Amino acid sequence: MTLPTVYGMAISGNCYKVQLLLALIDRPYRWVEVDSAHGETRTPEFLARNPVGKVPVLELADGRILTESNAILCYLAEGSRYLPDDHWQRALVLQWLFFEQYSHEPYIAVARFICLMLDPDHPRRGELPRLLERGHQALALLEQHLSTHSYLVGEAPSVADIALFAYTHVAADGGFDLAPYAAIRDWLARVRGEPGFVPLGG
Amino acid sequence: MTLPTVYGMAISGNCYKVQLLLALIDRPYRWVEVDSAHGETRTPEFLARNPVGKVPVLELADGRILTESNAILCYLAEGSRYLPDDHWQRALVLQWLFFEQYSHEPYIAVARFICLMLDPDHPRRGELPRLLERGHQALALLEQHLSTHSYLVGEAPSVADIALFAYTHVAADGGFDLAPYAAIRDWLARVRGEPGFVPLGG
Repeated sequence: MTLPTVYGMAISGNCYKVQLLLALIDRPYRWVEVDSAHGETRTPEFLARNPVGKVPVLELADGRILTESNAILCYLAEGSRYLPDDHWQRALVLQWLFFEQYSHEPYIAVARFICLMLDPDHPRRGELPRLLERGHQALALLEQHLSTHSYLVGEAPSVADIALFAYTHVAADGGFDLAPYAAIRDWLARVRGEPGFVPLGG
Repeated sequence: MTLPTVYGMAISGNCYKVQLLLALIDRPYRWVEVDSAHGETRTPEFLARNPVGKVPVLELADGRILTESNAILCYLAEGSRYLPDDHWQRALVLQWLFFEQYSHEPYIAVARFICLMLDPDHPRRGELPRLLERGHQALALLEQHLSTHSYLVGEAPSVADIALFAYTHVAADGGFDLAPYAAIRDWLARVRGEPGFVPLGG
């Protein structure tokens, strides 16, 4: 059997989403590390796979290629317990996945990138106050929802939880203190307790 | 029959996506205009519907609420010709929808917002050079794909085309010249030719 290949960078939360789902559904795959911090997503070979120049990229055994972490999650989760069958619940899963990419990741992941990857005197550090403000707005919305719900959609974890977990659980890397977010911290622990859970970079 | 309600702002491309799809599938609905430029998405009443404070919001006849324009598109398009049944093609539709929200809308829609809605001496105009650069990167990726494909996924229009059409066809409002993008212009004309097409703000 030829395995699907995931092109990704181990430190990236967007790539970790795919790793985590594949571990939770116990699906074998091949991992190809791509160092986007050193230009490896800008080579002609990589851009032929994904013209957007980003990881993760999913390549099926027959060569078909899928990009965008949250689209990959939905594709791989089909038929598993991490994607509900119900039409309305699927719509809510998508709602949270788009929230993650528009209102959460651009602040929390980007703050983490700046803090972890850029020099202490890099000019992009000037973006941090705004990123922290917007990131805390996203965390407050998550906290509000999780105060009355165990998971983002329905009574069980879905790809929505996997996607939001990816950068929320390492938000401290970008300077976010999760101490005030009790419901988020409880939810992070529930996700960590899923059978088959693997840590980021693991 | 009680109709679903769309809370939206007529000038918004994200809201227009929903209007356009509902027109194309000939589905009746109630429209409630919400002026987000004058704080109407920040009232307690609106935030009770969508804590994120954004339009569009879809409210079903039974009171259930869905947010995020592209999640609304997927939900409403189920069973229509604008959402493929095939698992792989659906994944590709989602790929383009996430591309739109992460790599296209934050540049092209935001440039349009700044140019149309803010004063000529507003400090946010300083963001325009970067927004134009990134927006043109997104347009170049669209152009590359549409040079060899009539539609974004498969041989027929889908919600991916509707979502990307919404802000691409008014990119000039944000200072983007579409003259160099011949394949995009042909594709815009194909979308405009869909039976039931309605213009933005129409």
